[in-house]
Amino acid sequence: MNYLLTLSYDGRAYCGYQVQKNGLSVQEVLQNAVEALFGSRYPLTGCSRTDSGVHARDYKALLKTDERASVIPPERLPLALNRFLPEDVAVLEAEAVPDGFHPRYAVVLKEYEYLVLNSRVRDPFYAGRAFLWPTPLDVERMHEAAQALVGTHDFSSFTSAGCEVADRVRKVFSASVSREGKMVSFRIAGNGFLYHMVRTAVGTLIEISEGKIAPADLPGILEARDRGAAGFTAPACGLYLNRVEYRKGEEA
Amino acid sequence: MNYLLTLSYDGRAYCGYQVQKNGLSVQEVLQNAVEALFGSRYPLTGCSRTDSGVHARDYKALLKTDERASVIPPERLPLALNRFLPEDVAVLEAEAVPDGFHPRYAVVLKEYEYLVLNSRVRDPFYAGRAFLWPTPLDVERMHEAAQALVGTHDFSSFTSAGCEVADRVRKVFSASVSREGKMVSFRIAGNGFLYHMVRTAVGTLIEISEGKIAPADLPGILEARDRGAAGFTAPACGLYLNRVEYRKGEEA
Repeated sequence: MNYLLTLSYDGRAYCGYQVQKNGLSVQEVLQNAVEALFGSRYPLTGCSRTDSGVHARDYKALLKTDERASVIPPERLPLALNRFLPEDVAVLEAEAVPDGFHPRYAVVLKEYEYLVLNSRVRDPFYAGRAFLWPTPLDVERMHEAAQALVGTHDFSSFTSAGCEVADRVRKVFSASVSREGKMVSFRIAGNGFLYHMVRTAVGTLIEISEGKIAPADLPGILEARDRGAAGFTAPACGLYLNRVEYRKGEEA
Repeated sequence: MNYLLTLSYDGRAYCGYQVQKNGLSVQEVLQNAVEALFGSRYPLTGCSRTDSGVHARDYKALLKTDERASVIPPERLPLALNRFLPEDVAVLEAEAVPDGFHPRYAVVLKEYEYLVLNSRVRDPFYAGRAFLWPTPLDVERMHEAAQALVGTHDFSSFTSAGCEVADRVRKVFSASVSREGKMVSFRIAGNGFLYHMVRTAVGTLIEISEGKIAPADLPGILEARDRGAAGFTAPACGLYLNRVEYRKGEEA
């Protein structure tokens, strides 16, 4: 049986989804739960890497079992696996998917949310879960500026030295900035994202709010294809993988 | 200077606000921060005890310094103290209050919120911060039933054996139950609360939703003045001290 798992995790304790030599990964605790449940280390394939400290509300991972495994109906799998997972990781849903389904290649949309607590004083309920920014942010200015990111662009200016992919063209479907009380939310949806792309977009928009970068400079920053042209990289703590969508017919 | 501090804390790591022999209290970490800042263990008086694992968004504590202390303007005190506090405790505000102000006796209103995650599957972002209840809760039925708690009543049926006060009459100003997605929120405001009173009210309302107690039984449960008449005590993890109000003229 091929199960597509929907995971949610608080990333504070983890070095990201992907197994790393130094540090505990979400994949590792999930792999251990799979082994505890099925008695076998069946392979897991994630929908993307996430950085250390990044959170997820809708992460997809494919679990491939075989005929030796006891057949667990997909609707029972979340509770069965959650018994073996720490409280900061949960399987929310599971569905059967056909052979050949790939949780990374079949993605057509990913949405990230980035939370900024716009306050001089921190909030214990968002420790490690939002980026604290003390001076008042101009949400309207950032929202308008963010529209320049929408569309198909080479996002080389918004990725870090660690980015190893050659093709840096991505399509951003939508970008928005909104406020609810002290919490400022950045949402960006696209067909894929480069390493640090969302965090650099957020840092750049914050610098636009602060008047360090003019909104009219954004098209030029994109054209420069130079990381030095954009703003700072906002820290991992505010970032949430919020939604992952697949081609029609490839999900249940 | 007498400072009235407004605190917020995630109670998961604490045995409550009050200093206890066994376990770390919020008061203890705050007392340590006061000592680190002022070089002296100036006395702290809290607005109430809170149980182990209970959270607060608006806890009030009085800090009395004396002429030996360097004078710190109240508006600077939150950031100054937060430097010495763990990330799950924060001072949100500080204001100067006159001599004789008592943070417990001057309270005219306290509001608690209780969060129930109404889902079969847990949420990593609410681990230790909401009570998980798997079967669908009837919010309307609970909200209507809760109105029987409003008013001045002897709440003996809603307190636990540990309650040491003789006068168990309290006035409840308002009680409401609402839902936002999977999160069900119980809010109750009153002039004071007995030990476990909010948690027992929530447990009783859940039993009303489940059909184990009839809404029409609530007046009789109050009249019984017998803990055995009410429902179960919901666990501490879902409880938040949400708001504390003082007599006019006694706060800034």
